[in-house]
Amino acid sequence: MKLLKRKKSAVITEKPMEVDRKDVRLKIDKSSDFYKQIQMVHLKQEDLIQLRRLKPLVENNIQGIVNQFYKNLEHESSLMDIIEDNSSIERLKQTLTVHIQEMFNGQIDDAFLEKRLKIANIHFRIGLEPKWYMCAFQDLLFSLMKLINNHTESKEDFYLAIDATRKY
Amino acid sequence: MKLLKRKKSAVITEKPMEVDRKDVRLKIDKSSDFYKQIQMVHLKQEDLIQLRRLKPLVENNIQGIVNQFYKNLEHESSLMDIIEDNSSIERLKQTLTVHIQEMFNGQIDDAFLEKRLKIANIHFRIGLEPKWYMCAFQDLLFSLMKLINNHTESKEDFYLAIDATRKY
Ligand code: HEM
Ligand code: HEM
Repeated sequence: MKLLKRKKSAVITEKPMEVDRKDVRLKIDKSSDFYKQIQMVHLKQEDLIQLRRLKPLVENNIQGIVNQFYKNLEHESSLMDIIEDNSSIERLKQTLTVHIQEMFNGQIDDAFLEKRLKIANIHFRIGLEPKWYMCAFQDLLFSLMKLINNHTESKEDFYLAIDATRKY
Repeated sequence: MKLLKRKKSAVITEKPMEVDRKDVRLKIDKSSDFYKQIQMVHLKQEDLIQLRRLKPLVENNIQGIVNQFYKNLEHESSLMDIIEDNSSIERLKQTLTVHIQEMFNGQIDDAFLEKRLKIANIHFRIGLEPKWYMCAFQDLLFSLMKLINNHTESKEDFYLAIDATRKY
C-alpha cells in the first residue's frame, strides 16, 4: 500500500521514469557489518526506488555536479596537492562521474559495498583526513539537494527523494 | 532582500520564534581550518538563523531524539561495549542532549569549534571507527528531518531548515 502511494508521487525528471520493486535490489549478507550499517541509516528498498527514479535527472546534470565538487576542494590547497601527487583532476572527474551514477542505480549488494570499502581504503591510504572527506561529501549532498529541490513539486516528494539520497 | 524573504517563511514550531541576524553569530578566525570547512559545507549566517528558529521545536522533542540515537547503536554490540567501558548510556544521554541543543543556538565561533574538535578527538581515543560515527550521525539527521518535515508547511521552509541542519 505504502509503496503504491509512493509510486504515484513520481519525481519530475527530464526523462520521467517508472520504477518499482523489480528494478531495484537490496541483497546483503545478514552477518556482515554492511548489513548493520544499512540498518543503522535506515536504508530500505523504497529508498532504492527513489534513487533509481532520480537517475535520469542526476545523469543530465552530472557534469555541473562533478565540476562543483572539484572547484570546492580548491578551498584547501593541501587537497589539491594530494590529488596531483596521486592522480589528476581530469582523471578523478571521470571516476566520480561513474561513482555518482552508480549511487542511483538502485542496486546494493555485497559486491557493490566491497567496491565502496575499497574506495574508502584508497582515501585512507592517500592520507585524506576524515574531516575533509566529510566536507566534500556534504558539498556533494548540497548539489544533489539543490537539483532535487528544483525538480520536485510536492514537499512529500522532495522529502522522500532527499531522505534516500542522504543515506549514502 | 533574500534574508527578509526567508524571515517571512517562518518554520512552524510549538513556540514560534522571531529570529534575525542579531540573534546569531558566525565568527571564525579566517586563517583556520575551521574557516575552510565552513566554506566547504556552505554554512552561512542564514543557516544559523534557520537553526536558531528550529531550537524550540528540537528542545520539545529532544528526549525522543536522544532515546532513538542510543537505541540505534544497539544494532552493533561492539558500540555498546565501548560505551560501557568508557561511560554509560545514562551519562551519554545527558551530554548528547546538551550537545544537540547547542547545535541549534546559532552561535558558531572558534571556542564552539574547539569544543567540537575535542569531542571528535574523544571519539577517536575510545576507538570508535569513523563508519559507525557516520551511521550514528545519519540516524540523528534522520530523526531531525522527520521532526522538521512534520512541523513545516511549505517545501521551501522545509528545504531551508534541513539544508541548515545537515551542515553540522
Ligand atoms: C564524497 C567524497 C568523495 C568521493 C565520493 C570520492 C570518490 C572517489 C572515487 C570513486 C575514486 C576512484 C577509486 C578507484 O580508482 O577505483 C577516488 C579516488 C581518489 N580520490 Fe576521491 N572521492 C571523494 C573525496 C575525495 C577528496 C576530498 C579528495 C581530496 C584529496 C579525493 C582524492 C582522491 C584521489 C587522489 C584519488 C585517486 C587515488 C589513486 O588512484 O591512488 N577524494 N575518489
Ligand atoms: C553523531 C554522533 C555522535 C555525537 C554527536 C556524539 C556526542 C558526544 C558528546 C557530546 C560526548 C561528550 C564529550 C564530553 O565529555 O565532553 C560524547 C562522548 C562519548 N561518546 Fe559520543 N557521540 C556520537 C557518536 C557516538 C557513538 C556512535 C558512540 C559509540 C560507541 C559514542 C560513544 C561515546 C562515549 C563512550 C563517550 C564518552 C567518552 C569519555 O567520556 O571518555 N558516541 N559523545
